[in-house]
Amino acid sequence: MRATILAVARDRFRREGYEAVTMRSLAADAGVDAALISYYFGSKRGLFAAVLELTLNPADVLASLLEGELESLPQRAIRALVAGWDRPETGLPLLTAVRAAAADPALATLLRGGLQREMVDRLADRLGGADARHRAGAFVGQLGGLVFTRYLLAVEPLASMTADEIVRTLGPALRTTLFGPVRRAATGNDHARGPASA
Amino acid sequence: MRATILAVARDRFRREGYEAVTMRSLAADAGVDAALISYYFGSKRGLFAAVLELTLNPADVLASLLEGELESLPQRAIRALVAGWDRPETGLPLLTAVRAAAADPALATLLRGGLQREMVDRLADRLGGADARHRAGAFVGQLGGLVFTRYLLAVEPLASMTADEIVRTLGPALRTTLFGPVRRAATGNDHARGPASA
Repeated sequence: MRATILAVARDRFRREGYEAVTMRSLAADAGVDAALISYYFGSKRGLFAAVLELTLNPADVLASLLEGELESLPQRAIRALVAGWDRPETGLPLLTAVRAAAADPALATLLRGGLQREMVDRLADRLGGADARHRAGAFVGQLGGLVFTRYLLAVEPLASMTADEIVRTLGPALRTTLFGPVRRAATGNDHARGPASA
Repeated sequence: MRATILAVARDRFRREGYEAVTMRSLAADAGVDAALISYYFGSKRGLFAAVLELTLNPADVLASLLEGELESLPQRAIRALVAGWDRPETGLPLLTAVRAAAADPALATLLRGGLQREMVDRLADRLGGADARHRAGAFVGQLGGLVFTRYLLAVEPLASMTADEIVRTLGPALRTTLFGPVRRAATGNDHARGPASA
């Protein structure tokens, strides 16, 4: 039954994209009760992960990261990403999914929908404010850059840097993306170079 | 003759990677004088671009960007990237090359070598200092994230943002990557939140 649900979900996600598919309509298509899908996969996010054959679901990781304090999210997000992608058991299925999405437009649509709804939108909700969605998009884009250059292409020095080094190098940029340079420097001037009191 | 050189270069680049192949050995392999390769392709970088069937070579674009002032490099790099990738004549071949590299390990090796030597190393040379290569790697990684999320996956809101919006959203993060939060806040404390004089 689980395999039937997965097959139906895979097909519908690929044809219609992540957002359009409802748990209810999937249950109808698979000829099962919606509660059974929840029982097997927990949520649409869980089903999405199963469809992508992931053993680690980045959306679930982000959801738990967002429960912590926002202030430390940049370094926590980097560490969670590096831990998940560095470990072969979780990293290889992720890499396979991303490689497949790069080659297959239908899978790219699926991955895009998941990234938008489960990562950009959730982060934007948590951030709040007028430009929250742009900042959330840039944040996810920068983490995507880490996936692309460190894992997909293995560009040095990123490919060999430790999690600590990445936190040191990329952490400040991610903080700037979330909170803006103004909040750190408190000068209201992005280009301020003058001395400032701590 | 140009086609022969290209065929030999494509084969050797794919097998040996960008760094290992010399113009001299390529000339010998193709049975031509090295000067003829320079005549047709200008440089190893130009030959690399031709091999990737690019009409716009990101390495050449970066080289000319690095001739300008470093201070404005983040916004100039974003604008050049968006201009090149948004235009179908230059963007589609780039997208094709990146998609191919995502699927083909040999092409990924080729792209990786080019990114390391022609982008990360050149930027690091220009930046100078102990952690220049890490900062250059993170900078290229962030621009790679823009390619990955805006062009390869078309994740919103990044896919629909204007160049101005991307400069506003991602520019400060790229400045932080190149120059560090310390240089802007001048407090020596990354986490400073107190008031500061401009």
